[in-house]
Amino acid sequence: MIRDRFLQTWKEKMGTDEWLILQDRYDPEENLKYESLFALSNGYLGIRGSYEEGTKTTLPYLYVNGVFDKSETFMRELAALPNWLGLKLYVEKELIGIENCEILEFSRALDMKQAALYWHYVLKDKKGRKTRIDGRRFVSRNCVHRMGIELYVTPLNYGGIIETENIIDGTIINFYDAPRFKVKHMTIKANEKLGGYGAYIEAATRDRNLHVGIGSVLEAFRGEEKIMRNRDFHAFGEQAVEFGDFTAEEGECIRLVKYASIYTERECPAYGLHVAVEKEIQAFEEEGFQEELEKHAGVYEKMWEEANLKIKGDFDLDRAVRFNIFHLMSTGNEEDDRISVGAKLLTGEEYGGHAFWDIELFMLPFFSFVFPKMAKNMENYRYHLLDAARANAKKNGYKGAQYPWESADDGTEQCPDWTIEPDGTCYRCYVAMYEHHVTADVAYGIYDYVKITNDRDFLFHEGAEILTETARFWADRCEYIPERDRYEINQVTGPDEWHEPVNNNLYTNYFARWNLRYVIALTDQMKKEYPEEYKRLTEKTGLTEKEIENWDQVQKKIYLPRKEGTDLLEQFEGYFDLKDVVIDKYDENDWPIRPEALKKYPARETQILKQPDVVLLLHLLGEEFDQKVIKANYDYYEKRTLHGSSLSPSIYSVMGLKVGDDSKAYRYLRRAAFIDLLNLQKNTREGIHAANAGGVWQTVVFGFAGVSIDSEGVLNICPHMPEEWEELSFRLHYYGSWVEITVDSADQVSVKRLSGEPVKIRIKGITEEI
Amino acid sequence: MIRDRFLQTWKEKMGTDEWLILQDRYDPEENLKYESLFALSNGYLGIRGSYEEGTKTTLPYLYVNGVFDKSETFMRELAALPNWLGLKLYVEKELIGIENCEILEFSRALDMKQAALYWHYVLKDKKGRKTRIDGRRFVSRNCVHRMGIELYVTPLNYGGIIETENIIDGTIINFYDAPRFKVKHMTIKANEKLGGYGAYIEAATRDRNLHVGIGSVLEAFRGEEKIMRNRDFHAFGEQAVEFGDFTAEEGECIRLVKYASIYTERECPAYGLHVAVEKEIQAFEEEGFQEELEKHAGVYEKMWEEANLKIKGDFDLDRAVRFNIFHLMSTGNEEDDRISVGAKLLTGEEYGGHAFWDIELFMLPFFSFVFPKMAKNMENYRYHLLDAARANAKKNGYKGAQYPWESADDGTEQCPDWTIEPDGTCYRCYVAMYEHHVTADVAYGIYDYVKITNDRDFLFHEGAEILTETARFWADRCEYIPERDRYEINQVTGPDEWHEPVNNNLYTNYFARWNLRYVIALTDQMKKEYPEEYKRLTEKTGLTEKEIENWDQVQKKIYLPRKEGTDLLEQFEGYFDLKDVVIDKYDENDWPIRPEALKKYPARETQILKQPDVVLLLHLLGEEFDQKVIKANYDYYEKRTLHGSSLSPSIYSVMGLKVGDDSKAYRYLRRAAFIDLLNLQKNTREGIHAANAGGVWQTVVFGFAGVSIDSEGVLNICPHMPEEWEELSFRLHYYGSWVEITVDSADQVSVKRLSGEPVKIRIKGITEEI
Repeated sequence: MIRDRFLQTWKEKMGTDEWLILQDRYDPEENLKYESLFALSNGYLGIRGSYEEGTKTTLPYLYVNGVFDKSETFMRELAALPNWLGLKLYVEKELIGIENCEILEFSRALDMKQAALYWHYVLKDKKGRKTRIDGRRFVSRNCVHRMGIELYVTPLNYGGIIETENIIDGTIINFYDAPRFKVKHMTIKANEKLGGYGAYIEAATRDRNLHVGIGSVLEAFRGEEKIMRNRDFHAFGEQAVEFGDFTAEEGECIRLVKYASIYTERECPAYGLHVAVEKEIQAFEEEGFQEELEKHAGVYEKMWEEANLKIKGDFDLDRAVRFNIFHLMSTGNEEDDRISVGAKLLTGEEYGGHAFWDIELFMLPFFSFVFPKMAKNMENYRYHLLDAARANAKKNGYKGAQYPWESADDGTEQCPDWTIEPDGTCYRCYVAMYEHHVTADVAYGIYDYVKITNDRDFLFHEGAEILTETARFWADRCEYIPERDRYEINQVTGPDEWHEPVNNNLYTNYFARWNLRYVIALTDQMKKEYPEEYKRLTEKTGLTEKEIENWDQVQKKIYLPRKEGTDLLEQFEGYFDLKDVVIDKYDENDWPIRPEALKKYPARETQILKQPDVVLLLHLLGEEFDQKVIKANYDYYEKRTLHGSSLSPSIYSVMGLKVGDDSKAYRYLRRAAFIDLLNLQKNTREGIHAANAGGVWQTVVFGFAGVSIDSEGVLNICPHMPEEWEELSFRLHYYGSWVEITVDSADQVSVKRLSGEPVKIRIKGITEEI
Repeated sequence: MIRDRFLQTWKEKMGTDEWLILQDRYDPEENLKYESLFALSNGYLGIRGSYEEGTKTTLPYLYVNGVFDKSETFMRELAALPNWLGLKLYVEKELIGIENCEILEFSRALDMKQAALYWHYVLKDKKGRKTRIDGRRFVSRNCVHRMGIELYVTPLNYGGIIETENIIDGTIINFYDAPRFKVKHMTIKANEKLGGYGAYIEAATRDRNLHVGIGSVLEAFRGEEKIMRNRDFHAFGEQAVEFGDFTAEEGECIRLVKYASIYTERECPAYGLHVAVEKEIQAFEEEGFQEELEKHAGVYEKMWEEANLKIKGDFDLDRAVRFNIFHLMSTGNEEDDRISVGAKLLTGEEYGGHAFWDIELFMLPFFSFVFPKMAKNMENYRYHLLDAARANAKKNGYKGAQYPWESADDGTEQCPDWTIEPDGTCYRCYVAMYEHHVTADVAYGIYDYVKITNDRDFLFHEGAEILTETARFWADRCEYIPERDRYEINQVTGPDEWHEPVNNNLYTNYFARWNLRYVIALTDQMKKEYPEEYKRLTEKTGLTEKEIENWDQVQKKIYLPRKEGTDLLEQFEGYFDLKDVVIDKYDENDWPIRPEALKKYPARETQILKQPDVVLLLHLLGEEFDQKVIKANYDYYEKRTLHGSSLSPSIYSVMGLKVGDDSKAYRYLRRAAFIDLLNLQKNTREGIHAANAGGVWQTVVFGFAGVSIDSEGVLNICPHMPEEWEELSFRLHYYGSWVEITVDSADQVSVKRLSGEPVKIRIKGITEEI
């Protein structure tokens, strides 16, 4: 058992192997990867899995979701905050650290069950002194302002004085290892002693002066006795350091506890930050590290009751899927509806912590089914930024609301107009200009959220308002072409970004039509059944019957390109005229090999895709297409998709299963599930692939378990288990009820209602109420 | 030839092997040692030999002599200033640095001839890219505010973009690698762009707010064309970074130049610092790196004409002696008489840059004979701090002037009353309280300086004033004991600090008497021959005939302990009653082995000494003792001296030669000459042993060449060459003339007057005028 590697007294509470991600050797080349894998988040903040004592290669970032800054960068990005992790031990001035000593024993493990990081080292320094170090840390979900480290230090073959430094490091900068892009988002406003003991740093974002206070105290214990001596506080420029020392006998085990806390001006006025942090740490100390950790683990225990997904008979995959769920659920927030979930969660700096369409299409289904309160906050986040989306549409010359391609705290477009290449050349980036489908995706998200939760209150208020404004945008965006008597949307980019821009991208046109149709039906229903809500909507948005009528005219004539006389939908107007390059070689993992033709022609001149576009449409709105069309298009486009995005495999996996092509589904799932654990894209250092994590969950639940909600609003389960699996089980919230679904290796399904009203369920076409 | 390892175009100007200290492999364990060995100083500032790209183990300190700060420390110490060295190269974000790459070729060398550091590396990064780097740097002695680095960068097997960071690092703290003692002496006041391009940091000492401005610009050249692109300035907290990039073809050699400058409020009002630095760099750029380096080397060429000491037939020792001279002369300052020379020069932080008695006894003879202007500044430094010495005497309850044991910028006692052990225990440090002989040493320094230079102007003005006040101190410090009808000085520590405190230390009592006698004679002479100067002195000091008479009474009755009926002088009253432990074992280098008895008794209960005490007196005032006494005491004390201080071997070496015991003299000299080059004391990391360096010069010149000035003021030369030497030659200033002295292996002496009036010289007893 993995947990046998760790401190005896801790291991009882640790998860069994399926809960633990083990690192069993130290290789500095892997530091950045493990920093992402072992990141801990409590929804409020996230801290990467860096080492307390510091290492040469590290990006030791702490983020608080919602604390963004722009300064010299092209966009507002999550500001790397002063790092509270620093904790150094010295014997006769020698740092007892992983990179300063010979490593005799080494284990680190992420315990997903408790959401805590554990480690065990035996280190030998240059003078032959051996020190055993057992540590663990967590960021509390019981109280999100509490963070702690516990360390048991045992000098194995020597005794004497051990010196300690408890550090809060304000020198942190974003993109620390990219000279061209380095940026400091925080200015240090105070570096001072925290109350009687400890260190405190107050920093502020440079552009909006949002203050953040971080404090920490380090204690050493022999049994219950506090033994830290010679405490001294130093403000070394941007580093706050609390020095202290203690004496340990040979073989004696001394316990160290680092209590830390953080508050920001988002929760507390700036003048009160120091006091808030100080009081929080005092309370934390009084209540105790162990007690807080237990409460935190208790919160996770409840969360796992909702989120755990078990695959029997496929141990590694089971754990890998759990790993993806762990990071997703850790980042979701049930308390704060002014923040969303960034493309790298709170685990890395790539994409600046921005919300993309990934939210609605890849992550929201998980949250809606498993943590509906978090999902609702993500929806409200969009609603709070509706005014910004209105302003964005106006800026671009359109009516209604146009959501930005990338969204941070204020809803302005955060997708840069310019991109700097690693070589310093700047080129114009057209994504924000052309990739309009995000506005339809936001609209679709509302539909999807409500379909799962039946949150009609949200639908008729916030939802309807957003949908109205996005419909308005689409109606205005569609251009009437008299000679062809149809509406077209020209100069856009669809999900497949390798063809940019195009005219009449089917995905975009179809969703524009869908948005209009959906709102027409919704307002019709509201007018009849919910007149009060309808009145509110029209008053708020100025919506008129006439406008709805106009929408109807538009939606009827939106051009949807397809290959006449076949079932093939055309990705965009003229797509079938491009060079028809087909993938004909696959590597040993069945992963497509880039066709030779792409050496001759740029991808945009061929039919080769980065990621599903038509197939994504069929995935999202499958009930609007018959099975023959779905199959024909899946077959056609699958052979032409290179999976240049981590968003791609999970969709093909789900869709493959839908059309009976299970040859690749399992392998696609494995690839997606291990994308970060095995660093398959070589960029895990930049953070966990959040959309992919959502896609993994979807592949298992929508793909292999065959869960869907049909047009009648009934939960369908139509499983198709891989040979390798003995049993699959998971729990879903659905229409306010909570059900547990178990599928066995013969695709037999059993469903148990855990709470809520009885609900209708259709298992392999047979409806029952449970 | 060592210089063949370096860039073809540079090597012609480099010194031949006797001028070069080579480091031919990189071992991070040796970084701190080489930082001291390869430190460069121009008298105004000193910078340690750290690497431009940064290394894990480093103390990259820059000091400006005279810029001290106390803050939380026990004493005012030289403040580590923002480090201007930083220069990093990146290829695709990979740092091309000594610790990030495989080292294919490596050489660094200190060129003492030019006072410049040279290096040559070929580095291979993780992706197999090989880069050749040839660099050199200097801190100009032509213009002490200019510092520069020149780098030739050649991508050997690749081409592309190379990114650069030109860094001024203000995060620097003193005692960086000692957690308990770390201290930040500077506050960053500005971090901004320097003019059009470049980086500027202004920092200030924390206690007195003395401002320091440091700026730098980095340029890249293809031939004459400036090719730096994408320049960008970043203020990262306390680091100022100028980013830039350039393109290099495979095999192409690009030249980089880093121009840097520093000014402090000691030379320029704070409001003018930025402009001063900016203008200095502009002028430096306009004049050119190569041109400035040549002017700088020209200054050193002239300095070496005065200072070079050649030992033929003993290559390693010849170079090692030169190395000691190099660091001494580099630190001396001909322009500034408000600074002195610290115990570690400007090469390390130990002893805080303080002036000790080392100045007068170990370094001043070198400066007086070789660089009399620098010597005069060191004497004036003492004169400027005479008021502080008066205040110090008053504080301690004495009359006159008492010089502090450790002296920084303001002349207050900087020897701490408390010492913190590495384990954090504080104990009372009595050195400042008891080690009074420094005040006699300062007095002796004046005598010695004037004896060599015949600077009577200084003697009758500043010198007489200091001597009067120190005599006053001694007259007051001596205590009349009626029952023994003698004056005693009780509760003092002599040069041998292992007996602390004692009564009637011979060295102290003798020098107290000497000081009184010398002033009595001096004032007598002045009254007769220089009445105006005498009048000035009495007016300035309130000196009266009556006081002089009193001094005469005191000096006549000062107790000088000795063993009755023998020639043995007694180190202090009761010394001969201590356990007579004698050194009876020597290691293979003839170095004394600590006697077993010291395991039983503390040194203070035995006759074992740390360093010469009686023998030092005999060295300094040898003309007052007959040869029999000198020999008897040398024989007695030499057997009891463990050389616990680096100040010890050189004195025994000189004295051994004087008494005809040349058995150890040569080995003592080797040990002293290589003390830093071979890190024999294991603490070269903390800086070059400055007093020892002066002792090395004295051993060669006073010991083996037998140079002395007799009571008639005539230069005596009475050589005794070691077998290994073929010829010894050096140059001295003496009484305003400049002579070259050459001694051959048969001890034949030839003397040539190079400039000045004819002087009398006594060679092996035979007087001639040259």
